[in-house]
Amino acid sequence: MNQEQQFDALLEQIQDLLNSRRYLELRDLFSEQNPADIALLLEELPVEKLPLVFRILPKEDAAEVFAYFESDAQEQLIKAFSDRELKEVLDELYIDDTVDLIEEMPANVVRRILAVAPQDMRSSINQILQYPDDSAGSIMTTEFIHLQRDMTVEDAFMRIRRTGVDKETIYTCYVTESDRKLIGIVTVKTLLLSESDALIEEIMEDNVISVTTHEDQESTAQLFNKYDFLALPVVDTENRLVGIITVDDAIDVLQDEATEDIEKMAGISPTDKPYLKTSTWKIYLTRIPWLTILMLTATISGYIISAYESALISSGMVMLTSFVPMLMNTAGNSGSQSSVTVTRGISIGEIEFSDLLSVIWKEFRVSLLCGITLAIVSFLKMLFLDRVELLIALAISLTLIVAVLFAKVIGCSLPMLAKKIHLDPAVMASPFITTIVDALTLIVYFNIASSILGI
Amino acid sequence: MNQEQQFDALLEQIQDLLNSRRYLELRDLFSEQNPADIALLLEELPVEKLPLVFRILPKEDAAEVFAYFESDAQEQLIKAFSDRELKEVLDELYIDDTVDLIEEMPANVVRRILAVAPQDMRSSINQILQYPDDSAGSIMTTEFIHLQRDMTVEDAFMRIRRTGVDKETIYTCYVTESDRKLIGIVTVKTLLLSESDALIEEIMEDNVISVTTHEDQESTAQLFNKYDFLALPVVDTENRLVGIITVDDAIDVLQDEATEDIEKMAGISPTDKPYLKTSTWKIYLTRIPWLTILMLTATISGYIISAYESALISSGMVMLTSFVPMLMNTAGNSGSQSSVTVTRGISIGEIEFSDLLSVIWKEFRVSLLCGITLAIVSFLKMLFLDRVELLIALAISLTLIVAVLFAKVIGCSLPMLAKKIHLDPAVMASPFITTIVDALTLIVYFNIASSILGI
Repeated sequence: MNQEQQFDALLEQIQDLLNSRRYLELRDLFSEQNPADIALLLEELPVEKLPLVFRILPKEDAAEVFAYFESDAQEQLIKAFSDRELKEVLDELYIDDTVDLIEEMPANVVRRILAVAPQDMRSSINQILQYPDDSAGSIMTTEFIHLQRDMTVEDAFMRIRRTGVDKETIYTCYVTESDRKLIGIVTVKTLLLSESDALIEEIMEDNVISVTTHEDQESTAQLFNKYDFLALPVVDTENRLVGIITVDDAIDVLQDEATEDIEKMAGISPTDKPYLKTSTWKIYLTRIPWLTILMLTATISGYIISAYESALISSGMVMLTSFVPMLMNTAGNSGSQSSVTVTRGISIGEIEFSDLLSVIWKEFRVSLLCGITLAIVSFLKMLFLDRVELLIALAISLTLIVAVLFAKVIGCSLPMLAKKIHLDPAVMASPFITTIVDALTLIVYFNIASSILGI
Repeated sequence: MNQEQQFDALLEQIQDLLNSRRYLELRDLFSEQNPADIALLLEELPVEKLPLVFRILPKEDAAEVFAYFESDAQEQLIKAFSDRELKEVLDELYIDDTVDLIEEMPANVVRRILAVAPQDMRSSINQILQYPDDSAGSIMTTEFIHLQRDMTVEDAFMRIRRTGVDKETIYTCYVTESDRKLIGIVTVKTLLLSESDALIEEIMEDNVISVTTHEDQESTAQLFNKYDFLALPVVDTENRLVGIITVDDAIDVLQDEATEDIEKMAGISPTDKPYLKTSTWKIYLTRIPWLTILMLTATISGYIISAYESALISSGMVMLTSFVPMLMNTAGNSGSQSSVTVTRGISIGEIEFSDLLSVIWKEFRVSLLCGITLAIVSFLKMLFLDRVELLIALAISLTLIVAVLFAKVIGCSLPMLAKKIHLDPAVMASPFITTIVDALTLIVYFNIASSILGI
């Protein structure tokens, strides 16, 4: 059985047990599953069964399963919860998951959540909520292990044992001064490999890499990729420790940002909901703006063709228009290759604005190689396969070289310039560049054709 | 100072210290930097200085810095190393980094590495090297903490303290039977929160999620995203534990696979080198195959236009060709939106083949909404802005609706069908679909135009 079949078999078993009210067996079945899988299974059940099934779950898994639910299932559940049940789940949720929840829920549900949350949780939530979306502060958690410099390793383990159960990670501990300034980190690995009477300040790492609360979440997540961190401290402008980001949240950001880049490159406004859970109308709204803009700008190409139309008819060269799709596609593809490469390079931190000239120089040479190859291939094809006239084949081959050159140089520079003026490079990629490149290609084509063929 | 300026200032300082031979100060400066940053700095130095600077590095950082180098710097260094130095670095490297190194080095360097490596390291290396590229086995490490079910928590901590220093992670420990069968995992968090005389078998998690050695590395990495793991065990077909994969390697795979998908969607053959380090010739080779193929297939559109050419001239309707770029671009963009969305959804595990019908149904409805909107916008624009004849505007608007419908339905189904027959969905995305959609759009256009305008 593959994974999908296993999933379906399990789902059927759950439905059978549920219909025959064999709840104890159902609980046993759940206790063998990972909370992430339980969440996926429960989301397939009819929504009115959800509260019942949720109450059957082993207590220690329930909050974790809840955190994995999509927001519509979470909303259904909260509405069915008693205040006591809601409080139980909130107590077990990590602060960052609670904040995610609050950001997705309608106002009346948020009010209920805040009403049952204890005071310290409310203030943590409010603190995180104040940071802008897409900032490091918005994805951090405030639950981490604090140590002081004059503690011993033994003290540290005592603190971890006493407070660790509720922390999102215990493997990196944070050493702060009394004014909450971050002065070092120490990992549990270091603690385990040190003598029990060693002082924290002797064994801690004091060159700490941290981010400030307003740092962009994408560049923050890239730090996990660069340094192989499990967690990263978040400080305010006075270097006071306010939270930490764990690697699982960094992975989510990296994945979401890659998806967003891909969507923008294809002219889609990004959403954070999975495709199959997004309504037709919402998908329509993410796609229609760029489609309309690009359709309207593409008519520029039409105007250029119209401008040459009478010249083409009177010189008997209407057949020149039949090469337009090939020329436009090839130039568009060449431009996309460059813009997409450069945009991804910017996203993963490989390319910076200071590389602009070396990128243009590289794309210039690549475009000459590509343009000449394409020109030769199409020249031979037109001459020997399509039996096109020599001069026409020449005009088209020359156009290819110039158009590919333009396309690649524009394709690589626009995303970098966009980044420099704080626009999104991904939006500049593919579709937008195609429109510019299309128009340029046509102008080049008709000019070269007129001078060679004298139309 | 921003990050880039800090980097440049630091680089200048290193060069000054190096030129004035103040090596002790240089070592102090390095000891304050993260190994990942040191590697980036050293790669900017002239290659002949590298062995000297590398010997200045604090011993505990040297191997880690080495692991972060690009392969050309690694090769230079190994050639400058004495056998003793090479052995020292190898002893400190994690097995998976050593395997990465061996895969990149030329044969003579590999022979030297294997000659100085101790016997047990050689057999681990050979074991990992035998797994196919892109498999879970190829990215695993064989250095992890083994526990037995009858050990106590105290025994476990003793073993971690004794053997942990060389392990890539100590935070998840693996419980095996005497025949190496994996029966459970236990985290250091659980160990720390348990009584010291508790038995491992009482506290271990025995529903272990693992992958087999030949599992695809991308779906393996997705498990880290789904379950928030820090490490994942790799077993053979008899459930014997052969290695583990750590989250840092999973992030690398996720990032590389996202980049690969993006490159393939833009018609580029993926490379694993950073753009700025790839030669012009290599970049040319990654781009020219698809450019040529797409250029040749795009001539089909030309043939279709030619076929209608005489009819267009004789009916005085040559101006119809001026709408071709707009129609082709709009259909192409519509198709890309669907194919890119579906391809990314397949990559991150949101969309499976069993969703085919619901995806097509959703895209069908979205395409009707998009097509009708675009048709209305362009109809009004042509009638009132461009003063095009009513019948022509009608023909073009109708074409838009049909072409967008075709584009979206083909765009969403091709990647899913590709996945089903084990082709790469990303290759099916953008450029390839554009070619099909272009040809279809022209056929639809000329047919609708002929019947409405009677040409």
